[in-house]
Amino acid sequence: MTDSQDDFRKHETSFATKKAKTPVQIARELRLQYESDVGIFFAEIAKLPRENLCKILIELPSAIFEEAFSRIPHKKMAKALSYLASDELTDFLQRIKQYDRDYAKSTYHLLAPEEQAEVSNLSQFPTDKAGAYMQMEMLTAKLTETLSQVKQKVRIFRQEKPNSPIFKLFVIDAEQHLVAILHFTDLILFDDDDTMKKIIAQATIHHQKPLSVHTSTPIEKVIQLFEEYELSIIAVVNDQEQLQGRIVFEDIYDLIRMQEQSQALKMAGADYEAEEESFSSARKARLQWLFINLVALCCAAFIISLYKETIEQIVALAVLMPIVAALGGNVGNQAVTVTVRKLALGQINWKNALPVIKQEIMIGIMNGIIMGAVVAMITLIWFDQPQLGLVIAIAIMINLAVAGFIGSMIPLLIKKFGGDPAIASPLFLTTATDAMGFFVFLALAEIILI
Amino acid sequence: MTDSQDDFRKHETSFATKKAKTPVQIARELRLQYESDVGIFFAEIAKLPRENLCKILIELPSAIFEEAFSRIPHKKMAKALSYLASDELTDFLQRIKQYDRDYAKSTYHLLAPEEQAEVSNLSQFPTDKAGAYMQMEMLTAKLTETLSQVKQKVRIFRQEKPNSPIFKLFVIDAEQHLVAILHFTDLILFDDDDTMKKIIAQATIHHQKPLSVHTSTPIEKVIQLFEEYELSIIAVVNDQEQLQGRIVFEDIYDLIRMQEQSQALKMAGADYEAEEESFSSARKARLQWLFINLVALCCAAFIISLYKETIEQIVALAVLMPIVAALGGNVGNQAVTVTVRKLALGQINWKNALPVIKQEIMIGIMNGIIMGAVVAMITLIWFDQPQLGLVIAIAIMINLAVAGFIGSMIPLLIKKFGGDPAIASPLFLTTATDAMGFFVFLALAEIILI
Repeated sequence: MTDSQDDFRKHETSFATKKAKTPVQIARELRLQYESDVGIFFAEIAKLPRENLCKILIELPSAIFEEAFSRIPHKKMAKALSYLASDELTDFLQRIKQYDRDYAKSTYHLLAPEEQAEVSNLSQFPTDKAGAYMQMEMLTAKLTETLSQVKQKVRIFRQEKPNSPIFKLFVIDAEQHLVAILHFTDLILFDDDDTMKKIIAQATIHHQKPLSVHTSTPIEKVIQLFEEYELSIIAVVNDQEQLQGRIVFEDIYDLIRMQEQSQALKMAGADYEAEEESFSSARKARLQWLFINLVALCCAAFIISLYKETIEQIVALAVLMPIVAALGGNVGNQAVTVTVRKLALGQINWKNALPVIKQEIMIGIMNGIIMGAVVAMITLIWFDQPQLGLVIAIAIMINLAVAGFIGSMIPLLIKKFGGDPAIASPLFLTTATDAMGFFVFLALAEIILI
Repeated sequence: MTDSQDDFRKHETSFATKKAKTPVQIARELRLQYESDVGIFFAEIAKLPRENLCKILIELPSAIFEEAFSRIPHKKMAKALSYLASDELTDFLQRIKQYDRDYAKSTYHLLAPEEQAEVSNLSQFPTDKAGAYMQMEMLTAKLTETLSQVKQKVRIFRQEKPNSPIFKLFVIDAEQHLVAILHFTDLILFDDDDTMKKIIAQATIHHQKPLSVHTSTPIEKVIQLFEEYELSIIAVVNDQEQLQGRIVFEDIYDLIRMQEQSQALKMAGADYEAEEESFSSARKARLQWLFINLVALCCAAFIISLYKETIEQIVALAVLMPIVAALGGNVGNQAVTVTVRKLALGQINWKNALPVIKQEIMIGIMNGIIMGAVVAMITLIWFDQPQLGLVIAIAIMINLAVAGFIGSMIPLLIKKFGGDPAIASPLFLTTATDAMGFFVFLALAEIILI
């Protein structure tokens, strides 16, 4: 007894210390290999087991992915693809298609007929809809089926799709409508000849409402449902309410990460998909942003040019003016970031945003008074001109208060008019705080100092 | 037959259309209520069912949360708390403690002894460790137990903890060491008098390795494991490798979201926890950032002041210099954002970052040439001074190339020296691109134009 328990212990420890490498980890190692020795890289690719081949390839950066897949024979690729869930299989083929239409086509024709059907079904959904993220493999049972029939289905499913986890049982009626989603923890308590209908009728067990979305439901909505209802799985139905597939938690991890990443990159003037795709698409997306920014910067330059004579008389203004503009930019950027996130999480909308706007203005005013006073002191010590200190203090206070207001209003306005707050907000913001900062400071200087 | 199927259909449709509101949704409505009529707000709070009370309260913004909980009698609160999982219960009490130590203490003493034990056990773990996020409620079975004993445990667990989902069965040996994690889909296939030991020995079933982390494992590491291994659940063990609790997928949704949010806010100079806490802590955290930024801005101002005479002679320099600095800031910011995210995802580290640095420099150079040429054209048209155009073109090219280099190096260096790249990178970056931009532009102007 004690011996065999020890055996189990050893078993456990060896698993814990020597965990199997994940596709992500293998892909990371392969990338380093590629950089140091391309020959060994291709040798390693050739040695990869079919079950994991596609999962590893898809994690490689685009440039390497393109080289790697194109050297794999169509037949081997088709076999490797059959280890993927239907949604992954479709994604993979679509990615290959970007680089090499012919390769994708030939491989597609080597797939099993039901796999071809799944791919052509799934690839019809746009990437922002639930349909594109569903797996069509799942365990379903009819209302009239008994528990022993379900057990048989489990055995077959396990054999046919060893990599496809069964989380829950989807119970459907004769017309494929979803009736209930059952957990196996519940099923275990019933007898072999109980039908699904009888099991569901037990009110105590049927606490799980069959939550479902349509194939055309926006994927953001699906992510929100998973988070708010703390779901592990959701059913996807078509317009006739017939069960089509399932979306599971592991996709949600990726989707939340991607949603946030894409938002953060957008706010910095880069594009998630372009960054993932290739060097040149990343560079072009970023260049576009620089151009739009240049327009904004020219506005700021134009405002400065209006006060050329004033600057000629007091060059200290040229020295100090970037401080006024940049502090406004910082405060505004804080307000924009906070507001964009509140909007994205659905915490605020145009109608209930007043408290947020008020708060941002208050922060702008209070921090504006403090920063204005501090910069005035610095100016006084540096240039020994009390009036210049006064001018910059007032300019900073005004600019920071306005920055708080604009910073919270811009994302709300963009959202109201149907735009994406994360893309356009930082741009409008800097334009506003730069222009405002230079204008207030130089105009005040002209009035007070000259 | 057809009739009863129709019944099921109706049942399903009503569920789909009239979904129960989630705590998040109810909290959102209550907040609006609070803003429009505080009286009704408290009436609604009093009416909330105990099962949901705490889950709803915790979703309220801090200011409202504080008011709401303090009016609930200790006894009612203690009962409401018992509907929470151990980790949520501990979180809730700790949050209350921030506002009102006495209230938290009195409520704690009204909890059941085993709940008190769970709280005092869980609250010992720092918030960045796995221990703080585990639930202690879970279904365990000894190796010697039979399937029918497990079934009995399921029934009892369901009764005692109706809100605590059972995802998997944790099988432990006599010393509480985790031996296996079993899915009920597998268990359903066995006989009532099979012991866990026998079931696990069936190699075909035991495909699930018992992946576990320690209570002291950093929570980031746990999140990474969930994402890479696509886990729904993980076991948490103590230093003696004894099973302590579990962390489940629903916490991971929150944690991924929080990790990304906190990073995005940090990069904008705001702090996630301070923003969540209160107006004044948010304002102070943001002010701190403005002060640090001011130091950077003073460096830039100092560099401009070195070229006062040059600016006095050619005021156009003051008009154009913000363009050079800001474009550098943009390119650098793109590089910083991309690099910080690659670091956070563990895609790069100090040793294998060379390709990323090279890519950022290349983007800086290529986009620098294009932007330099464009701005030179604008300058030529605006000021009609070919030499000024040449100066600004060269300055932009240099500054953008340097910005790409610095933007990718800064996060890597900060990470290497143990700092948090998301906090400090944007600051060091703007300091560098501003100083560099003003310096290159004004110094070149002095050499070429004067």
